[in-house]
Amino acid sequence: MAPVTIYGMNMSTCTRRVITTLEEKSVPYEVVTVDLSKGAHKQPDHLARQPFGQIPAFEDGDVKVFESRAIARYISNKWASQGTDLLGKTAAEKALTDTWVEVEAQNYNPPLSTIVAQKVFLPMYGQQTDEKVVAQETEKLEKVLAVYDAHLADKEYLNGSSFSAADLSHLAYTDYYVNKGGGEAVLKKYPNVWAWWQRISSRPSWQKVSAMY
Amino acid sequence: MAPVTIYGMNMSTCTRRVITTLEEKSVPYEVVTVDLSKGAHKQPDHLARQPFGQIPAFEDGDVKVFESRAIARYISNKWASQGTDLLGKTAAEKALTDTWVEVEAQNYNPPLSTIVAQKVFLPMYGQQTDEKVVAQETEKLEKVLAVYDAHLADKEYLNGSSFSAADLSHLAYTDYYVNKGGGEAVLKKYPNVWAWWQRISSRPSWQKVSAMY
Repeated sequence: MAPVTIYGMNMSTCTRRVITTLEEKSVPYEVVTVDLSKGAHKQPDHLARQPFGQIPAFEDGDVKVFESRAIARYISNKWASQGTDLLGKTAAEKALTDTWVEVEAQNYNPPLSTIVAQKVFLPMYGQQTDEKVVAQETEKLEKVLAVYDAHLADKEYLNGSSFSAADLSHLAYTDYYVNKGGGEAVLKKYPNVWAWWQRISSRPSWQKVSAMY
Repeated sequence: MAPVTIYGMNMSTCTRRVITTLEEKSVPYEVVTVDLSKGAHKQPDHLARQPFGQIPAFEDGDVKVFESRAIARYISNKWASQGTDLLGKTAAEKALTDTWVEVEAQNYNPPLSTIVAQKVFLPMYGQQTDEKVVAQETEKLEKVLAVYDAHLADKEYLNGSSFSAADLSHLAYTDYYVNKGGGEAVLKKYPNVWAWWQRISSRPSWQKVSAMY
């Protein structure tokens, strides 16, 4: 099997969503670095793969996909029978996983990614953190975390029974938040969320991806 | 077949995404109104269905789903063999549709929904439009529309060949933007986008849903 190709960067959260999916599914891959710091994402060869000039883009032979959540779904579908079942088997299981994949995209990620941008990425490029924005977004995030805490009170994973695409989708940004963005104290206020975070971030797939940067 | 139930409001964009999907798939449904203006979305019965207190929520017998894009996917999967094929048949077709479903969620909807909130929803509740926000978000939206225009230069639909979940996902917010939010002049600057908009908004499913408010 020829490896699939991810055009991205090891440190990019969305690239990491895709690589973690490939690790969970035991699919061979190669990463071709698109160096954002050199503007490689705005060059014609990358724009032909990703017209918005973002990363990652993905190729599996003739199949070209972009947007990390779409790529993760393609991988989970195409290699459904190997590795971890990330989508669920019955229509009800799939619906529950899909619900929490969307909750991550719509409720969890908007405040959390804004905080990570302020606390981790801006300082990396020599810019100042706006603590007012961090405080506002932390307030929004805590409301979301309270719902997660109640949901996870009687469950090990977001879909209730097993590690899925829904849990996986939370790994990359939460790792930066907890380990580089001062988020550990916030997450620990929600004990069920913290226990879930320990559970999902200790998976071998994530341990490997997390060590890439 | 017992009808499925949508808990939402006819005028809500996310409720409309679900209803349009049901219309395209010829699935019988009933809408139970959750009146946001009376705070019904924050009451315990609704929070049991949608813990973030948002609309819509969805029930098909014992299967309970929330988040409109997850509901639309459940409907498209469960009734795959009837009505319009919204997801595609091959892995490559599904990947292309999924890519543009995600582009709507990540690139198109953030600026466009902010403009619609400013120009349509705030005035409805007697609040002032912030024209500076509208101008900023319009600049972002136009960059996205330029990419759409190039993508649609040789295609009738976003996945290239047929109306899909990707096109459908754009209907509700774009309709408010074009018909109530001053967006017609902006969209007409992008001729391929405008032709696509005429094509997808003239579908019987959308004509029916659009007339609900």
